[in-house]
Amino acid sequence: MKIPRTIEWVDGKVRILNQLKLPYKLEYIETSSYKRVIRAIKKMEIRGAPAIGVATAYGLALAVTKIRIKNLEKALKKLNSIAKEFMESRPTAYNLFWAVNKILDAAKTAKNVDDLKDIVVKKALEIARLDEECNRKIGEYGEKLIKDGGRVLTICNAGSLATSYYGTATAPMYRAWEKGKRFEVIVMETRPYLQGARLTAFELKQAGIPVKVITDNMIGIVMRKIKIDLVVTGADRVTKDGYVINKIGTFPLSLVAREFSVPFYVAAPFSTIDFNSTIDDVKIEERDPKEMLYIFGKRIVPEGVGGIYFAFDITPPDLVTGLITEKGIYKLPIKI
Amino acid sequence: MKIPRTIEWVDGKVRILNQLKLPYKLEYIETSSYKRVIRAIKKMEIRGAPAIGVATAYGLALAVTKIRIKNLEKALKKLNSIAKEFMESRPTAYNLFWAVNKILDAAKTAKNVDDLKDIVVKKALEIARLDEECNRKIGEYGEKLIKDGGRVLTICNAGSLATSYYGTATAPMYRAWEKGKRFEVIVMETRPYLQGARLTAFELKQAGIPVKVITDNMIGIVMRKIKIDLVVTGADRVTKDGYVINKIGTFPLSLVAREFSVPFYVAAPFSTIDFNSTIDDVKIEERDPKEMLYIFGKRIVPEGVGGIYFAFDITPPDLVTGLITEKGIYKLPIKI
Repeated sequence: MKIPRTIEWVDGKVRILNQLKLPYKLEYIETSSYKRVIRAIKKMEIRGAPAIGVATAYGLALAVTKIRIKNLEKALKKLNSIAKEFMESRPTAYNLFWAVNKILDAAKTAKNVDDLKDIVVKKALEIARLDEECNRKIGEYGEKLIKDGGRVLTICNAGSLATSYYGTATAPMYRAWEKGKRFEVIVMETRPYLQGARLTAFELKQAGIPVKVITDNMIGIVMRKIKIDLVVTGADRVTKDGYVINKIGTFPLSLVAREFSVPFYVAAPFSTIDFNSTIDDVKIEERDPKEMLYIFGKRIVPEGVGGIYFAFDITPPDLVTGLITEKGIYKLPIKI
Repeated sequence: MKIPRTIEWVDGKVRILNQLKLPYKLEYIETSSYKRVIRAIKKMEIRGAPAIGVATAYGLALAVTKIRIKNLEKALKKLNSIAKEFMESRPTAYNLFWAVNKILDAAKTAKNVDDLKDIVVKKALEIARLDEECNRKIGEYGEKLIKDGGRVLTICNAGSLATSYYGTATAPMYRAWEKGKRFEVIVMETRPYLQGARLTAFELKQAGIPVKVITDNMIGIVMRKIKIDLVVTGADRVTKDGYVINKIGTFPLSLVAREFSVPFYVAAPFSTIDFNSTIDDVKIEERDPKEMLYIFGKRIVPEGVGGIYFAFDITPPDLVTGLITEKGIYKLPIKI
């Protein structure tokens, strides 16, 4: 099975699959410069919260291996200042800060500069490995929900391209396929950035899983006319009261799924669950409407007409059949 | 109020607002050739079922005025053969056949060729006038549903551009605005052809009504975050058991509206109601997926990945608050 790997540590260099070129070109960025990694994050050549976390960790590992200072304290200071550069690259990316903290915490235990380099590189590799392990466990729990000969529907890209490897929403699909089940996946194109059409379709095709794309507004008629056995989406955040914050379009999808009695699952690691916030604490990001008023650089509305662009949707717990995590499948809200 | 007129009979010529150029250019096609009208229908320079009906009627009027034959029977034969050319231009357009029949029925009453010319032109003008009258009545009944200071949401273009004038879903908006009510309209972009973003936004802006565009997948979060007072859509067909066949995206929209207790109305003339069919008789048109896999000529999915393209959605009667017609507002299904 050829599931694309979006980021890799290869012989002391970082290799990033340029997502801006997908699905038109398979182009890799190979670099030993942490500044190039920051540029890749800024330009969205790499995207998806877990993937950005891994890119940050690898970027700091690149930076630390090039430090020529012999004094540990000064080397740590240098690392901290580079970490700050990463934190300024995409200020809303939660996983980016999380990765920076993991690396800096580990760095504090270093006894000398050589030790520091060793520790940071190891930690970065561990962050990537743990992300992949989580996803593989999600796949193990989730694959049971996929019927041999069935049909799965998903939105956006919560796939291998958005994580270290294997994806979250895609993990049950990959695992089921590996186990020999055969099924078809329907992907919503996911306006405005078309991550479903461009990225999820790309990685499923690479993996050899049959995939078809629909426009986002087609969910109702597709579920009425074609049997869908399962909906799986990713999540950007799950609140302690069980609300799922995910790509716009997720909530109407959950309503349509309920209407046709199709199980609606969300796949996400425990790290996505925010046990400190309820839905009332969450501010839904509003972005510049320009990002949806133009497609491929061409304006789709008359001059002088504006738009509204909420980037995320809110899905209440009663519409979610279950949350597939690395520890098992849970009803929302999770009681702990 | 400057509501755009999509087709007009001016001094024995037909003037068509070229919808392919909207919203980028306001370009008119002025012609005395019926063949040019057929081309406009085929190329979708004019679209919208009622507008196509009017174009057909005017096209036949152009054709008949140019007939040089003195023999009535031969002239009628000629008219019939031209009518056939129209019927082959867009084989699924119901209003096109309806207009052809109206014209041919009227033509049968002619006493001589001059009389025939007179009758056909008059009938064509009458078809356009009656369509506009229907819409104005829909506006009169529907405007009561619009709150001063409120916000209305619509999908696709069931506007003046799709009809003789004034539109169906837009009629209540235009009438309310004429009466001095002030409100904002939110339009779904309506993939794949973006009629909401390109056409409805265009005509509302022309009319001076504030309008904002959203992506189709944004309906849930918009109704959660911004107060919507009313949803109005058009309809391509209403079955005798009360199902509404309309643009894809209409059904998820009706579900979201119910979830947030927003009244969901459909505006359509009685001629849209098919009292001969139930929903089980209706075949939902599946079109070439290419039409949604490319945007502005650019492919949005990887090579080798296909799509599904259902052009219409099915909304059950229990999700429709009311059907706004030229005879008043009805609960679905209509009992007659």
